[in-house]
Amino acid sequence: MRRTVFTEDHEDFRSTIRAFIDAEVAPHYERWEHDGHPPRDFYNKLGELGVFGITVPEEYGGAGETSFKYQLVISEECARAGVSFGGYGVHVNLCLPYLLKFGNEEQKKRWLPAFVAGDAMFAIAMTEPGTGSDLAGIATTARRDGDHYILNGAKTFITGGVLADRMLVVARTAPPSAENRRTGLSIFAVDTKSEGYAVGRKLEKIGLRSSDTAELSFTDVRVPAEDLLGEEGRGFEYLTHNLAEERLGIATTSYASARAAVDFAKAYVQDRKVFGKPVAAFQNTKFVLAECATEVEAAQSLIDRCVEALDAGELTPADAARAKLFCTEVQGRVVDKCLQLHGGYGYILEYPIARLYTDARVARIYGGTSEVLKTIIAKDLGV
Amino acid sequence: MRRTVFTEDHEDFRSTIRAFIDAEVAPHYERWEHDGHPPRDFYNKLGELGVFGITVPEEYGGAGETSFKYQLVISEECARAGVSFGGYGVHVNLCLPYLLKFGNEEQKKRWLPAFVAGDAMFAIAMTEPGTGSDLAGIATTARRDGDHYILNGAKTFITGGVLADRMLVVARTAPPSAENRRTGLSIFAVDTKSEGYAVGRKLEKIGLRSSDTAELSFTDVRVPAEDLLGEEGRGFEYLTHNLAEERLGIATTSYASARAAVDFAKAYVQDRKVFGKPVAAFQNTKFVLAECATEVEAAQSLIDRCVEALDAGELTPADAARAKLFCTEVQGRVVDKCLQLHGGYGYILEYPIARLYTDARVARIYGGTSEVLKTIIAKDLGV
Amino acid sequence: MRRTVFTEDHEDFRSTIRAFIDAEVAPHYERWEHDGHPPRDFYNKLGELGVFGITVPEEYGGAGETSFKYQLVISEECARAGVSFGGYGVHVNLCLPYLLKFGNEEQKKRWLPAFVAGDAMFAIAMTEPGTGSDLAGIATTARRDGDHYILNGAKTFITGGVLADRMLVVARTAPPSAENRRTGLSIFAVDTKSEGYAVGRKLEKIGLRSSDTAELSFTDVRVPAEDLLGEEGRGFEYLTHNLAEERLGIATTSYASARAAVDFAKAYVQDRKVFGKPVAAFQNTKFVLAECATEVEAAQSLIDRCVEALDAGELTPADAARAKLFCTEVQGRVVDKCLQLHGGYGYILEYPIARLYTDARVARIYGGTSEVLKTIIAKDLGV
Amino acid sequence: MRRTVFTEDHEDFRSTIRAFIDAEVAPHYERWEHDGHPPRDFYNKLGELGVFGITVPEEYGGAGETSFKYQLVISEECARAGVSFGGYGVHVNLCLPYLLKFGNEEQKKRWLPAFVAGDAMFAIAMTEPGTGSDLAGIATTARRDGDHYILNGAKTFITGGVLADRMLVVARTAPPSAENRRTGLSIFAVDTKSEGYAVGRKLEKIGLRSSDTAELSFTDVRVPAEDLLGEEGRGFEYLTHNLAEERLGIATTSYASARAAVDFAKAYVQDRKVFGKPVAAFQNTKFVLAECATEVEAAQSLIDRCVEALDAGELTPADAARAKLFCTEVQGRVVDKCLQLHGGYGYILEYPIARLYTDARVARIYGGTSEVLKTIIAKDLGV
Repeated sequence: MRRTVFTEDHEDFRSTIRAFIDAEVAPHYERWEHDGHPPRDFYNKLGELGVFGITVPEEYGGAGETSFKYQLVISEECARAGVSFGGYGVHVNLCLPYLLKFGNEEQKKRWLPAFVAGDAMFAIAMTEPGTGSDLAGIATTARRDGDHYILNGAKTFITGGVLADRMLVVARTAPPSAENRRTGLSIFAVDTKSEGYAVGRKLEKIGLRSSDTAELSFTDVRVPAEDLLGEEGRGFEYLTHNLAEERLGIATTSYASARAAVDFAKAYVQDRKVFGKPVAAFQNTKFVLAECATEVEAAQSLIDRCVEALDAGELTPADAARAKLFCTEVQGRVVDKCLQLHGGYGYILEYPIARLYTDARVARIYGGTSEVLKTIIAKDLGV
Repeated sequence: MRRTVFTEDHEDFRSTIRAFIDAEVAPHYERWEHDGHPPRDFYNKLGELGVFGITVPEEYGGAGETSFKYQLVISEECARAGVSFGGYGVHVNLCLPYLLKFGNEEQKKRWLPAFVAGDAMFAIAMTEPGTGSDLAGIATTARRDGDHYILNGAKTFITGGVLADRMLVVARTAPPSAENRRTGLSIFAVDTKSEGYAVGRKLEKIGLRSSDTAELSFTDVRVPAEDLLGEEGRGFEYLTHNLAEERLGIATTSYASARAAVDFAKAYVQDRKVFGKPVAAFQNTKFVLAECATEVEAAQSLIDRCVEALDAGELTPADAARAKLFCTEVQGRVVDKCLQLHGGYGYILEYPIARLYTDARVARIYGGTSEVLKTIIAKDLGV
Repeated sequence: MRRTVFTEDHEDFRSTIRAFIDAEVAPHYERWEHDGHPPRDFYNKLGELGVFGITVPEEYGGAGETSFKYQLVISEECARAGVSFGGYGVHVNLCLPYLLKFGNEEQKKRWLPAFVAGDAMFAIAMTEPGTGSDLAGIATTARRDGDHYILNGAKTFITGGVLADRMLVVARTAPPSAENRRTGLSIFAVDTKSEGYAVGRKLEKIGLRSSDTAELSFTDVRVPAEDLLGEEGRGFEYLTHNLAEERLGIATTSYASARAAVDFAKAYVQDRKVFGKPVAAFQNTKFVLAECATEVEAAQSLIDRCVEALDAGELTPADAARAKLFCTEVQGRVVDKCLQLHGGYGYILEYPIARLYTDARVARIYGGTSEVLKTIIAKDLGV
Repeated sequence: MRRTVFTEDHEDFRSTIRAFIDAEVAPHYERWEHDGHPPRDFYNKLGELGVFGITVPEEYGGAGETSFKYQLVISEECARAGVSFGGYGVHVNLCLPYLLKFGNEEQKKRWLPAFVAGDAMFAIAMTEPGTGSDLAGIATTARRDGDHYILNGAKTFITGGVLADRMLVVARTAPPSAENRRTGLSIFAVDTKSEGYAVGRKLEKIGLRSSDTAELSFTDVRVPAEDLLGEEGRGFEYLTHNLAEERLGIATTSYASARAAVDFAKAYVQDRKVFGKPVAAFQNTKFVLAECATEVEAAQSLIDRCVEALDAGELTPADAARAKLFCTEVQGRVVDKCLQLHGGYGYILEYPIARLYTDARVARIYGGTSEVLKTIIAKDLGV
């Protein structure tokens, strides 16, 4: 079905991204996966390309766009090529909204130009060993000491943790009150070169190997008070302000991944022969691809509708929860079936379908597990 | 998510339909199910309501609308109340497009006013014992004899077959040619009161009990040549001209049925207590409803997009095949899960969820089985 | 795989049952479905056949067998022919164990010979409008009055309720204690011809139409104290003593139904041609049947193992819960897929696959819903 | 349910294996995964333990057992510890049956003692780039030249290819005949130190990282005629003689993996707290574990029955196909669900559940894809 969400501008942007991937990503991607991250200067190339600043206001070096559609294009093009932009999603989809919404004028001037240029890569550190999704359990502390805060604690599952220049760290500036466990959290944009800030071991993951995931520890890290984001004690509230967009971002990647899986499988079965005829000639192959393409079509309808709603300022957290739940489930089923059509080759990591498979498994977990999402959706239903 | 497909006109129409169902359908529905069809004069009430003529041009007594959205509203309102309009879908969704597209001026003038008023109910007879979906195997013959055709043969699975006033009968006017098995078929709008036209036994079905399904037989039925629809020998082509709309019609009903199932289940679990608390209080209940609501949301996005595409003249047969496949699968899963939430009551036919369940099973079969649809979708994918 | 559970005795029994079904059940089954139950004298024929007394000790007119395998054979043969023995399962699988275990010598002598002969059909009345599976909520009362009890209350979902001669009624002889809601229940074997005992309306069900399901009401029914089963106040305990066997009985029927569905589908697709070749020639047909046959094989392994364990006195409630959960889920999937292979015919009740489909839906609900079973299994796992 | 397949001997063997894993495997396993294989001398330890020679006749240094149950024990114990014995399965489950059945007396004397001791590790090379499961397409040639054969060609997907001492190579000794594409293949036990025998690059796989998978190439490798296994030209027949046991071996590993996944998940959810209570306390957790445990129970019944049948010489290829299809599907579903219960930790490879997940994906592919198995099963059904 003809899509109605894109204008000519978006299609021009798509061509640019596609050419960039062909030149700067695809030829090097196997090495990135091996190294666990792209080379540092790749982020400057992304900066030059302009993709970090799409929604950053012009006065800070960005393009001042407000639409999410460019991000949809990037997701589609990365998936189509079987690659990812390493820490891009964390930098832009997760961190930027905090800077734009809670950063004061001084901070925006100080941080955003380098953010846009790729000179300062941002990441975010929420989860601690033992707390999981339960933010109220955060034990990292930031104690006020003159015009600094003294940061102590540890974090884990930090995507982009190895290369980040500035880390948004969620820390406790006061104990939780008896009535409301959610009080007392604050967010700091910590310079990762600070003394006492240490990157622990890199976690070996099932997939997503082109972006590093690390443990962090903070031992008496002195954080200047001007690196506090927004107001002290309102961290919990800030952490939830952007969940709809964050989750739509994951849903978008999942949908794009499922769509790409169908394309890879289609190309494979048309090319590959067994028992004297192309795999595509078997009825089972046709039916499986048809099932997958149908689910992808439904996911695309939902994503397109959600992107329009987000751009219109109407996307609710429950909408985003439904989109993430649906698209990540579709991704799980579709990528699994498309891998099966590859036979033994599907198990070999040099085939993009294998990477899509290993990357896919985390989508039902991070940014809110399917179980957390169902809780949100049920509440929205009134049950 | 706010829907964007409906205007105020559609919502006014929705109120009218809802009031009509409350007054004229719901109170009598159990009897209709028992009888196997609504009383004959119900169709005149539908005629007065104007729903048969929505897309009929004004010169033949209709409203001259072109949008499919009114049909979407009717599907949603019927499902919401757990009822159906008996042979309505066959009359309007299946038969009317033939009359509008292939009827000549004389026929339109002769048939459409009665069609709109509900005085002449139409149905269509394609399937024969032994042929199934394979139209080329049709054995009913129509032999030219002066200004009449002599019709002989038998049909089965004829929805609306008992009450229809005029039956669109697909018959063979010439043997299939060696090169093209699809030649030689014609369509006649046969007066069901003709001599030799017999309604055989009513088939007992798993569900859909408020619309009859019958076998028909034709023994030397004399059909006036002016009741031939379109040109002789082009029946196969005619039968496929409207598949996209027919299938979107089924997809729409399936989506609406799934949505209604969630509403029925939600009401039930909020009301019903087990082990001292409402069923809705159990995490499993919440999660199941959340899964169902999410699938319904995706189906709604797809349906809304398809309806816009149909209204714009852009909906392809493959689009409609994907929509029908997806929505009927969602319906199957969702209605099954929502029935389970009703416990033993879900198995008792007086509960609407039980009727939704028995009605649902045919949706993956009629109007093109899921297997036929997958074949179409695969071809569209190029495999 | 060769089965190892059956001896020659069982195979002889199988031949007897098969011949009986061919002669006494299959030719009349459509009428039974229409009437909602077999004719009363059919139960005497079952009595003559000896199937009611297999596990009844010889002194009460039975065969004194202890193995469950005969019941497995009956389930397989009924499913194979697409029929059921009406209230047989309730009489033998549900009620008999109460009589054998809790009946006193006088009661056994009074009831069992007629039980075996089919002269006295038994059924059991637990569920009440509003209580569902929560036995502690039972409100029907039995007040002692001299050498009688006075029974008042109402029951629903009573399978075999219309034709039963004696009904095991669970009633409250004392209010529940504060510490233990389960106290105060007793079981009476009530003569259904007693004054004040009324059979209410028959419930229309999705399937299982050859056995009636009714509502009952009791208005000052005088029940002789010698019809109290076991001791007063221990009803709850009694109701749970036989859950393993009851649930294995359902699991057995579900497995047998799935196996029969595969056989019906196989016969259909070999016979039926579409697009010029048998349905069986399509790869999708082969694959679907292979998937179904594989699930049936696993179910058979599990059933055979459970039957051996039951015969050895080792089957735990959790074992039976797993067997019922697994086999009813397999039945749901397999019968659905096998129906689909029948195309439109699968929706017509004269085809056995359609009856298997409508019968199947209750299996995940009655005798402990899948949700109740999961709770039991999880507890057994220690979580 | 109490299992009936094991005697005290098997349980003693289980204790031995468990102790061996605790001492010799678990502490080193992370390094093996990193290296892509165990250290060479680990195979000598397995030799000393006696597990290579269980079914080897005593005259060649083995224990002369005939039961498959020891292998079942090994699978269960490896899975329970979240490890594997590297190339063990290929050596014993795949290669040994060829040596025992087709090796002549001289060959058995020459090879088996070293086989049993772990001094000579065997592997098998069938698949070629471009042929997949289609053995008839094999292009590697072995041309007779005096008392040698000259081997030329390439193989891929060779598990154990890096460390093997002797490789069973399937090669073409004559072109396929027009009537029977399966003729002309022979099997050689090639010394991997031969000149012209080269191990190409190691393939990076999604999982199974403790066993290497390599490409091989043969350039004028001179193979002594006495290393021909069985008769020239009967290779195809030989390759299919042991499919039932090979596939049961995979099914066994899959079942054991699913069972272990439930145990890992159970331990995790009992230990891990979220929102102030153990994950195990949530109804969803209980239900998911109950579903998984139920599927594992069914798989265990099927495996136990198949192992008895294999030991009795009764297991057919179709039986084994059903067992592999069922157990690998169960493994897929169960491991996925159990990973989800681990949340983010499930995605980190140091958790055994993550390794079970990555290992699992190949089970539906190797040793006959699910699609190949369905074809076999359907043929066995007669469709």
